[in-house]
Amino acid sequence: MIDTLAIVGVGLLGGSIALAVRERGLAHRIIGVSQEEQPLAFAQQRGMIDEGYLHFHDAIQEASVAIICTPVDKIAPIASTLLSKFPEIIVSDVGSSKAQIVSAMTTTGPLSSRFIGGHPMAGSHNNGPEYAVADLFQDRLMFLTPVASTSPRATDLMTQFWQGLGSRVVEMDADRHDAIMAKISHLPHIASYVLGGAIEDEYLQYCGTGMRTMTRLAGGDPTMWTAIALSNQQHLLQCMEKFNEGMLAFEQALKAGDAARLHELFTQGRRTHHALGS
Amino acid sequence: MIDTLAIVGVGLLGGSIALAVRERGLAHRIIGVSQEEQPLAFAQQRGMIDEGYLHFHDAIQEASVAIICTPVDKIAPIASTLLSKFPEIIVSDVGSSKAQIVSAMTTTGPLSSRFIGGHPMAGSHNNGPEYAVADLFQDRLMFLTPVASTSPRATDLMTQFWQGLGSRVVEMDADRHDAIMAKISHLPHIASYVLGGAIEDEYLQYCGTGMRTMTRLAGGDPTMWTAIALSNQQHLLQCMEKFNEGMLAFEQALKAGDAARLHELFTQGRRTHHALGS
Repeated sequence: MIDTLAIVGVGLLGGSIALAVRERGLAHRIIGVSQEEQPLAFAQQRGMIDEGYLHFHDAIQEASVAIICTPVDKIAPIASTLLSKFPEIIVSDVGSSKAQIVSAMTTTGPLSSRFIGGHPMAGSHNNGPEYAVADLFQDRLMFLTPVASTSPRATDLMTQFWQGLGSRVVEMDADRHDAIMAKISHLPHIASYVLGGAIEDEYLQYCGTGMRTMTRLAGGDPTMWTAIALSNQQHLLQCMEKFNEGMLAFEQALKAGDAARLHELFTQGRRTHHALGS
Repeated sequence: MIDTLAIVGVGLLGGSIALAVRERGLAHRIIGVSQEEQPLAFAQQRGMIDEGYLHFHDAIQEASVAIICTPVDKIAPIASTLLSKFPEIIVSDVGSSKAQIVSAMTTTGPLSSRFIGGHPMAGSHNNGPEYAVADLFQDRLMFLTPVASTSPRATDLMTQFWQGLGSRVVEMDADRHDAIMAKISHLPHIASYVLGGAIEDEYLQYCGTGMRTMTRLAGGDPTMWTAIALSNQQHLLQCMEKFNEGMLAFEQALKAGDAARLHELFTQGRRTHHALGS
């Protein structure tokens, strides 16, 4: 149980954390921080947060935990500011990539003991607190990426916090986390956007469930996804290369009219479908 | 209203046609034909069909319409057999590509007047009559691809039939149909299989809704998809090339760390997402 929780960035994830914390009674008071008035007003009106601020107000002094839910490129500077301004606060985040953030935080020296990177495997292609739901993290994986300098207190507190929200918490090295995310999240998102970008306008009228399914992920905010892609550049480039090899294998088999090879490639792809029960 | 309808290939589509025809009372009697006993037995047990045959039984003589719902590479030979064996029957199909079939049928000379190519924009990644549903074609696009030799009677009958099943019937040139399908259906399926094939087994445990969504299409039968890919080879290869260019654009922007270009590419991809309301 946290006395005062600060949520920096009151969008889909920040709003959902607020709703989940409310529903489960995990904090007495929730402070929202945002650069924009609209999401704060919305979150306050809906009772998601108790107070909302457009800057790092002194009230955050009373927060024992702050969770940063902004685009990934803003997380490290915000975390540094919070840690230096508020000497007791434990800071975590929900960014989709971790190595760059964790590495930036180690440059803050002793401050970094109160930071622990986090990433819930939950979200939506919809943005904004109006899409927030209280059960977003229920039964979902939650990655925490502590490093040697992270205080056990920070790790324990955030583990309990996310378990309290119903998540399955997994500790993982930040770089390994990013390698996995590049493959299972960032690559499929890129593929979805590329498919979306490849469709001629006049074909849209004919699209059925296939194209609708395959462009579902391509609804995420371009600014958010630009930051994610750049923050996981090396792993993502490697995955894209492997994906391109897979496309090339299909292309070569198709060009050669090689039914046996095509059958093999389709069969390989289907294994994942079955494994995921999708 | 058809007196006797023959359905050749009693899988998801054939079974769904049977259920829809039953529900809407569009035929007095439904004959099922399959190479395998199991789907026939299942369809008969569920009352989808009145009779089932493992070969082109004389009973089909009484059918005024036969709809072929087999893998695409089997459709033209089956259509030719039906047309020559049963001199009154009108034959159509539900194959995902049309040019190869329509072109093969023109070689049958006068018989081809009783054939009209068809393709409903409906389906599932699940196979077999056990997944058949009566409303599969409701409000879906249904392509018919008549040619100069197609009798108006065949076109009118199949138009009324599919409208009777609730579909929006669109007449289209077979080659244009295939160009559209390559882009909006066959390419996204290939991308889904390639994504599925690119995942390491140890990563499966971490997959969330993103990868589950993107590999949903990769559940289709590899034999069926091998036949579809080969039957639409040229259009599909062109679409794969355009898709690869899209991947390359992302790759170059990412390598260069070009945020503005990445933002532009994500924004382009998102347009389709919004246009499809996915």
